Amino acid sequence: MESSDTTLFVCVTCRAQTTDAPQADLPRPGARLLAAINAVPEAQRAGLAIEPVECLSNCNRSCTVAVSAPGKWTYVLGTLDPDLHVDDVLTFARAHRAHEAGLPAWRTRPEYIRKNTISRVPPLPSRAPDEVSSQ
Amino acid sequence: MESSDTTLFVCVTCRAQTTDAPQADLPRPGARLLAAINAVPEAQRAGLAIEPVECLSNCNRSCTVAVSAPGKWTYVLGTLDPDLHVDDVLTFARAHRAHEAGLPAWRTRPEYIRKNTISRVPPLPSRAPDEVSSQ
Repeated sequence: MESSDTTLFVCVTCRAQTTDAPQADLPRPGARLLAAINAVPEAQRAGLAIEPVECLSNCNRSCTVAVSAPGKWTYVLGTLDPDLHVDDVLTFARAHRAHEAGLPAWRTRPEYIRKNTISRVPPLPSRAPDEVSSQ
Repeated sequence: MESSDTTLFVCVTCRAQTTDAPQADLPRPGARLLAAINAVPEAQRAGLAIEPVECLSNCNRSCTVAVSAPGKWTYVLGTLDPDLHVDDVLTFARAHRAHEAGLPAWRTRPEYIRKNTISRVPPLPSRAPDEVSSQ
């Protein structure tokens, strides 16, 4: 079941985890992650709105993205490297989009995403009362 | 500016961070946190819908709650102790509710919450297009 309004938020202010010299850290890894995602062939981003955001409050485990859609669970994914994890992020986002509740089956999630999921939040009760506490 | 539909999700499956004996960990700290929140005088929970949830995917930094409302930012708070942090959680939730974008001023956030915010996610563009990338 597909919907066309899944949003992939990308934190563009994320710094690298390992840098000791933040002043030299430009462009920031978060901005590079956004650019890398936008450089992927459009077919791999179909149905995803890519939105830059300033800070997803996961600074200790950056880079960070969030996947969200109306009436679905929201996932925050972290510890992302713009040079390594673009495919994993988009694979997860497509699986999230394809699942009616935004809860893709474990086996469909890339291993790196499984291990670096920061948090998830249910949809609000007023939008989807049946999904709040039963999943 | 107040709204009456702020939801405080409480993960009831969260275990304690320090326990070495999960089998003996019943009732789970998450369930105790929910009970402690519901035991607070109602005036301190006014306007908050308290919703139990099974897993907010923040298992390494439990206990965990999330504060969410239509058109506002969603915050995930972690490393919570049901015996210590109920007041901090409710103080933050009330400040979130009182702010039209769900972005309470830093000084209004309890210190422990500032240091143990796990993530935040903007509202979806379709719900509040002006707030997605500018805050």
